[in-house]
Amino acid sequence: MKKQVKIVTIGGGSSYTPELIEGFIRRYEELPIGEMWLVDVERGKEKLRIVSELAQRMWDASPYQVKVHTTLDRREALPGADFVTTQFRVGLLEARIKDERIPDLHGMLGQETNGAGGIFKAFRTIPVIGQIIDDMRELCPDAWLINFTNPSGMVTEAAIKKFGWKKTIGLCNVPTIAQMRESGNIGETEEELTYQFAGLNHFHWHKVTNRDGEDVTAEVLKHVNEKNGGTPVNIYQEPFPEELLDSMKMVPCGYHRYYFMQREMLEHSIQEFKKGGTRAEQMYQVEHELFELYAQPGLHEKPEQLGKRGGAYYSDAACECISAIYNDRHLRMTVSTENKGALPCLAPDSIVEVSSLISARGAEPIAWGEMPPAARGWLQLMKAMEECVIEAAITGDYGLALEAFTMNPLIESGKEGKRVLDELLVAHEKYLPQFAEKIQELKAA
Amino acid sequence: MKKQVKIVTIGGGSSYTPELIEGFIRRYEELPIGEMWLVDVERGKEKLRIVSELAQRMWDASPYQVKVHTTLDRREALPGADFVTTQFRVGLLEARIKDERIPDLHGMLGQETNGAGGIFKAFRTIPVIGQIIDDMRELCPDAWLINFTNPSGMVTEAAIKKFGWKKTIGLCNVPTIAQMRESGNIGETEEELTYQFAGLNHFHWHKVTNRDGEDVTAEVLKHVNEKNGGTPVNIYQEPFPEELLDSMKMVPCGYHRYYFMQREMLEHSIQEFKKGGTRAEQMYQVEHELFELYAQPGLHEKPEQLGKRGGAYYSDAACECISAIYNDRHLRMTVSTENKGALPCLAPDSIVEVSSLISARGAEPIAWGEMPPAARGWLQLMKAMEECVIEAAITGDYGLALEAFTMNPLIESGKEGKRVLDELLVAHEKYLPQFAEKIQELKAA
Amino acid sequence: MKKQVKIVTIGGGSSYTPELIEGFIRRYEELPIGEMWLVDVERGKEKLRIVSELAQRMWDASPYQVKVHTTLDRREALPGADFVTTQFRVGLLEARIKDERIPDLHGMLGQETNGAGGIFKAFRTIPVIGQIIDDMRELCPDAWLINFTNPSGMVTEAAIKKFGWKKTIGLCNVPTIAQMRESGNIGETEEELTYQFAGLNHFHWHKVTNRDGEDVTAEVLKHVNEKNGGTPVNIYQEPFPEELLDSMKMVPCGYHRYYFMQREMLEHSIQEFKKGGTRAEQMYQVEHELFELYAQPGLHEKPEQLGKRGGAYYSDAACECISAIYNDRHLRMTVSTENKGALPCLAPDSIVEVSSLISARGAEPIAWGEMPPAARGWLQLMKAMEECVIEAAITGDYGLALEAFTMNPLIESGKEGKRVLDELLVAHEKYLPQFAEKIQELKAA
Amino acid sequence: MKKQVKIVTIGGGSSYTPELIEGFIRRYEELPIGEMWLVDVERGKEKLRIVSELAQRMWDASPYQVKVHTTLDRREALPGADFVTTQFRVGLLEARIKDERIPDLHGMLGQETNGAGGIFKAFRTIPVIGQIIDDMRELCPDAWLINFTNPSGMVTEAAIKKFGWKKTIGLCNVPTIAQMRESGNIGETEEELTYQFAGLNHFHWHKVTNRDGEDVTAEVLKHVNEKNGGTPVNIYQEPFPEELLDSMKMVPCGYHRYYFMQREMLEHSIQEFKKGGTRAEQMYQVEHELFELYAQPGLHEKPEQLGKRGGAYYSDAACECISAIYNDRHLRMTVSTENKGALPCLAPDSIVEVSSLISARGAEPIAWGEMPPAARGWLQLMKAMEECVIEAAITGDYGLALEAFTMNPLIESGKEGKRVLDELLVAHEKYLPQFAEKIQELKAA
Ligand SMILES: [Mn+2]
Ligand SMILES: [Mn+2]
Ligand SMILES: [Mn+2]
Ligand SMILES: [Mn+2]
Repeated sequence: MKKQVKIVTIGGGSSYTPELIEGFIRRYEELPIGEMWLVDVERGKEKLRIVSELAQRMWDASPYQVKVHTTLDRREALPGADFVTTQFRVGLLEARIKDERIPDLHGMLGQETNGAGGIFKAFRTIPVIGQIIDDMRELCPDAWLINFTNPSGMVTEAAIKKFGWKKTIGLCNVPTIAQMRESGNIGETEEELTYQFAGLNHFHWHKVTNRDGEDVTAEVLKHVNEKNGGTPVNIYQEPFPEELLDSMKMVPCGYHRYYFMQREMLEHSIQEFKKGGTRAEQMYQVEHELFELYAQPGLHEKPEQLGKRGGAYYSDAACECISAIYNDRHLRMTVSTENKGALPCLAPDSIVEVSSLISARGAEPIAWGEMPPAARGWLQLMKAMEECVIEAAITGDYGLALEAFTMNPLIESGKEGKRVLDELLVAHEKYLPQFAEKIQELKAA
Repeated sequence: MKKQVKIVTIGGGSSYTPELIEGFIRRYEELPIGEMWLVDVERGKEKLRIVSELAQRMWDASPYQVKVHTTLDRREALPGADFVTTQFRVGLLEARIKDERIPDLHGMLGQETNGAGGIFKAFRTIPVIGQIIDDMRELCPDAWLINFTNPSGMVTEAAIKKFGWKKTIGLCNVPTIAQMRESGNIGETEEELTYQFAGLNHFHWHKVTNRDGEDVTAEVLKHVNEKNGGTPVNIYQEPFPEELLDSMKMVPCGYHRYYFMQREMLEHSIQEFKKGGTRAEQMYQVEHELFELYAQPGLHEKPEQLGKRGGAYYSDAACECISAIYNDRHLRMTVSTENKGALPCLAPDSIVEVSSLISARGAEPIAWGEMPPAARGWLQLMKAMEECVIEAAITGDYGLALEAFTMNPLIESGKEGKRVLDELLVAHEKYLPQFAEKIQELKAA
Repeated sequence: MKKQVKIVTIGGGSSYTPELIEGFIRRYEELPIGEMWLVDVERGKEKLRIVSELAQRMWDASPYQVKVHTTLDRREALPGADFVTTQFRVGLLEARIKDERIPDLHGMLGQETNGAGGIFKAFRTIPVIGQIIDDMRELCPDAWLINFTNPSGMVTEAAIKKFGWKKTIGLCNVPTIAQMRESGNIGETEEELTYQFAGLNHFHWHKVTNRDGEDVTAEVLKHVNEKNGGTPVNIYQEPFPEELLDSMKMVPCGYHRYYFMQREMLEHSIQEFKKGGTRAEQMYQVEHELFELYAQPGLHEKPEQLGKRGGAYYSDAACECISAIYNDRHLRMTVSTENKGALPCLAPDSIVEVSSLISARGAEPIAWGEMPPAARGWLQLMKAMEECVIEAAITGDYGLALEAFTMNPLIESGKEGKRVLDELLVAHEKYLPQFAEKIQELKAA
Repeated sequence: MKKQVKIVTIGGGSSYTPELIEGFIRRYEELPIGEMWLVDVERGKEKLRIVSELAQRMWDASPYQVKVHTTLDRREALPGADFVTTQFRVGLLEARIKDERIPDLHGMLGQETNGAGGIFKAFRTIPVIGQIIDDMRELCPDAWLINFTNPSGMVTEAAIKKFGWKKTIGLCNVPTIAQMRESGNIGETEEELTYQFAGLNHFHWHKVTNRDGEDVTAEVLKHVNEKNGGTPVNIYQEPFPEELLDSMKMVPCGYHRYYFMQREMLEHSIQEFKKGGTRAEQMYQVEHELFELYAQPGLHEKPEQLGKRGGAYYSDAACECISAIYNDRHLRMTVSTENKGALPCLAPDSIVEVSSLISARGAEPIAWGEMPPAARGWLQLMKAMEECVIEAAITGDYGLALEAFTMNPLIESGKEGKRVLDELLVAHEKYLPQFAEKIQELKAA
């Protein structure tokens, strides 16, 4: 593979692309990009134009000559690709707004990757991942699929288990952010500490040891509730009960706040919604401003404002992961990959998010061992729910969708939850062909 | 064992005792009772007197001469016992009232065996079961422990796994009631059908086949939402969504309503609470009336009114189980017993509630096989929660109690849930010596 | 199903058929046979004629009018069948002779269902079971497949897991014989005792309790090495070391002698072989005599001499099993069926031989729980070997066949074992189309 | 821990010690040794003197000033130790000679770590490891135990699971040798390749990938049967059948030859035995010569002749492991450590030998995932046998010892195996106090 690398980015018109470009420029000496393709859909054409022109200006301002290609037809881009990165959003931010508004209106958490919103994001995204993989099988059968489309864990599980693309790695910036912040909180550098993560995407725990092998998790836990505690900025920082942290003896991820302080998180979400709309709507505005910036011909670097979005370091994680594969670096990184027993309380073929070694072999998960009962029960519940969601996303089975809704701790069971399910189905009709029949039935009723 | 049988009933002053006596009288020819002891605590002395006198009148009116002994010291009763049945309620109905009122007041489900109330019933009961077993080990080392003290599943798990009394069987009337009602609903007799149950106490599913081996579960499911659908009378009959039933392809138990239609069940519970107090308070009244009846010297049979209580058929199940052991009957019965692999998604040494054969060997669980993902996830969550509860009940570990509260789907996570935990701890102080230190701390705050 | 029953017996020309007929006659009142078909292959035509005429004479001498049909084309017999029983032997006794002679000649155990012989019996039989199931799917999609073709466990696993015929039950007479003999040895009747078996076909253990629930396994073990110890007559009765029996605390089956006293069993097998040929060759003679008897027009009952064969009670087990299904009897019987967790050390979808309830639902395995380490290791090894055998039987994969040979404790690993594998492949060429290519290669070499 | 390191070597009088010293000298800059203690028993006093004097000369010839202490009382050495390495041999080479001769005389494999010899080495060693750990708990509670006493896997399992010393790592040179040789065989350097090992000590498999992530295992397999194929020199190089290698798609370790080509390996062992005595006896001679060399006052480096012994690179592995812990290096190394799910076919708390990361946290196993059926069955059998051995080693349970003998593929089951067990018990009486009663009984018989 020591030839120059061809990268194809699906959803290339995303506002995150400049971060990706910056990451590749910074790593050019170790990861020589030959060709770069940004792919998007018709509706994203204008954004794709703006972002690809900025991308080209960024490369042109660098010491390296890389051509940025664009296309609305991924089949044009894929042939010969070494890495396909996915950062698309089926239905764009408009869809996310629905994912967040509709639950909120029914008094449930409106959130992008958790609860009802996360399930619908999976319903829209998984079939498209299937189609992308069909194309990859034909056009670039040796390529790696580096997914950072959310819900990243479920999308990765679908890609590997259901669509059979073993060379998939799922990414998330949550572990990255935790590592960066927490080390500082206890007066250490990130390099001094060893982090071990295990769980599911947006639902994991970690432990930390120092250079002397001493477990410093308890110290890290003392700072979890602080402003810089390691939780991404997009999550409201309702404090975890101290006794809960002490009892777990592991650091929960930021998204656990939705599960462990449910009423507080819900109330905050509804307040925010009343004040300024959903987070999606706020992002809509942020995006708008970003693209105005991107369009300025004088700009040839990633603008600072991009850092405000929850996805910071996402693209950096992607570049790092790609470089680790290309250079066979055996880099310790937390990714979504096949369990292989790393978490014995889940099936070996489930996709989990665990500390892994990234090398030319892909991700090798580090075995974690048995979880204490509470974490084990949570993980098993969440994975079972994910399985229902993935199966429903592929088959359009309404009953399974309802089972997933009923199990999901952030969705009310009963009539109200079912109402949210039905409204979301109708609202996203355009992107849910697998549920077409049920949607017709719902519309007729 | 073909000698006459000595039965010791702990909590003998319970209003259910007459049903038990009736059951033993009806089965005397197959199960010759030699001696019968009713044991209760000082506070239950008067009830014990009333109920034991009725019991003796019942036996005297029968063709059999059985002496009913009473004592406030179980160590007097236990020597030589063949079967010890447990139907006691630590803290009496007053404690149950607190279990139900306090959550209700915080907008959560107030229920005897589910949610916060069920957890506290476990906290109060499990240490006492441990003490009873200590006494049995010394005084009647060959006796069977037939537990129908709630939460029956957790109490049985504590008895077998934690206190090492392998000869324990946990009973519940929910499967009995389902079998009786459902067969009629589809125009069959109970004998024509084979029921297979699997899950946890108050959290199980079942499938039904007919004499020709045809799966008639779908037919049974059509009637689940009817008045006679198989749910015990003490549970509000909010209908299950049809699509959920269709998707599960198994019959959920009545208690699943709390989990699958949470808001509706909660609203009903709060309404009832506002109208007439908690169910516990209503029962208080029912109990009062029952004991007035029991005290009438002319009464020498089980009065009809007892049937109104949720525990109907409970004692009958106990007599049936004892007779099946005594007579080595290999009776198919649904009980709480060691899993042994019957549900492969749970540990072999977990206690589960499954269709079993009851014989002189005790309970032999019938293997169910793998559960579909949703049911598997639910069971794994609930069992993990039970493990935290049992461990906390024995050790008084507040952090684990909080973890159990946080996981339990019927308890709000976050501040409000923690408040309920703390109030219940203080309210039940007298019966929670294992939490004494924490309770002092809470009271001081 | 309460209509009259149609039975189709594949391999109907077997010398065991009269026992089957006798079993059906004896049970006619509970299991009314309407029609009976005996199917065999061209090479078995003459035997089929003799045996079917005897069968008809037996029915004619009974109070019941049942017509025995014969055919060489199973597709003529299958339509409308309720039960298909399989007792065929691909390649007849001649094939068995090779299975036993060839290993013996190389100094390894020559035995019908264990070691190299058992593996080759699987290689020949499994593809034919696949074809029978293909026909059943088309012609009698509701029929039960009652298999007693050996190796019964592997054939049943192939039928259920590989060919998808869930309504298959695998039978063996070894548990039957053990139960009959052992109860007498300890001065009890079979009815007084409860047997629990678990393991694999021809590789299981059991425990025994009496009417009082007391474990009497230790007593049974005292008699295992006696002439009437429970081991079938076809197995040489080399005694088990007492300390081994004491340590296991479970009764091994007769076939365990091959594994636990390997040299002694091998030496006896070779001695026998030198004296009078393999057991197969002795059986050849017994068969010849039996068929001379069967052909006598005056005979209209099962002749006593049939009892000499190792398969005694086999057919009786089949009749009993069929009746238990037909009458929904919930009969406790040891059969090969889907594990479903009954043995947690094996996969839930593995086929195991365990005490089960036989009813219209088929077999419900009784959960056994965890095995002690030694038995667990043996079972896991043997099941893994079976998996290799079954996969090789279907695919003709020589490497997997060699892996199975290498693992099998009764086959020498290394050159000599490989030689036996190769010779058996060539010897059975006619019945091993799946290995055709490899056989050509071996013949060319 | 960045202070100077105190090393205590139990069995310090071993002929391997100079390699250990050399390793520490070579790594002094990264691993500053402050103090070094060599501990041995009375019978090894003279060897300890010779070897410690050589060790001191080696340090004196180096640029570093390290004092080598000796003692016959480990309690004198242990206080304040950072690393305790164990390389002792209970009963010295004389005991090994018995382990090898006695099985050989009965026609079974006489080998140091496999078969009957390996089991007895475990019986003698495990209780001593328990005593060492008792002393460590008291005198150096924070020390790491780096075990290279054989059978390394079982000793490590006993140390971690039975004696509770979590900070134990078990070492072996087999993976080291394989990596060194195999890379050269396919024209690569060791650094270019990634090895993943999984299994048990002396019973593992591995796969190899190159810098491009391509699986080159098939290429490595082509050279396994060559002189430099990766098998340690102490193992006779009977070739593996090619079809077996092709089917496994993993590289078996050298010790697999005993299991996969049993007759050939046995015959070679017996031939060698007839020619020149057991390998142990040959080693006796080698040892004698080595100690003559060591005693020469002019020698102050590790003599070349030490490389002839099977244990080459053992001590190097130990130094490397210690340095990786001390320097928190996250070094990829194959060690015996807690499974934690890395091999899902074995219990999470079993000790396995797998590729791990060695850092200040100890060993973190890399998850391997599910094994193909044959390897899975082998591993499960061997681990179950190990469990019986370890339990018998601690309790002196003869029945369990016999169960282990019966299961072990390299020991004949039946009378002859039992005879070997009994003779070995008597022969090793002095070192087997746990079996004292049984040994008396055997001697009396
Ligand atoms: Mn994320
Ligand atoms: Mn109940
Ligand atoms: Mn058989
Ligand atoms: Mn070694």
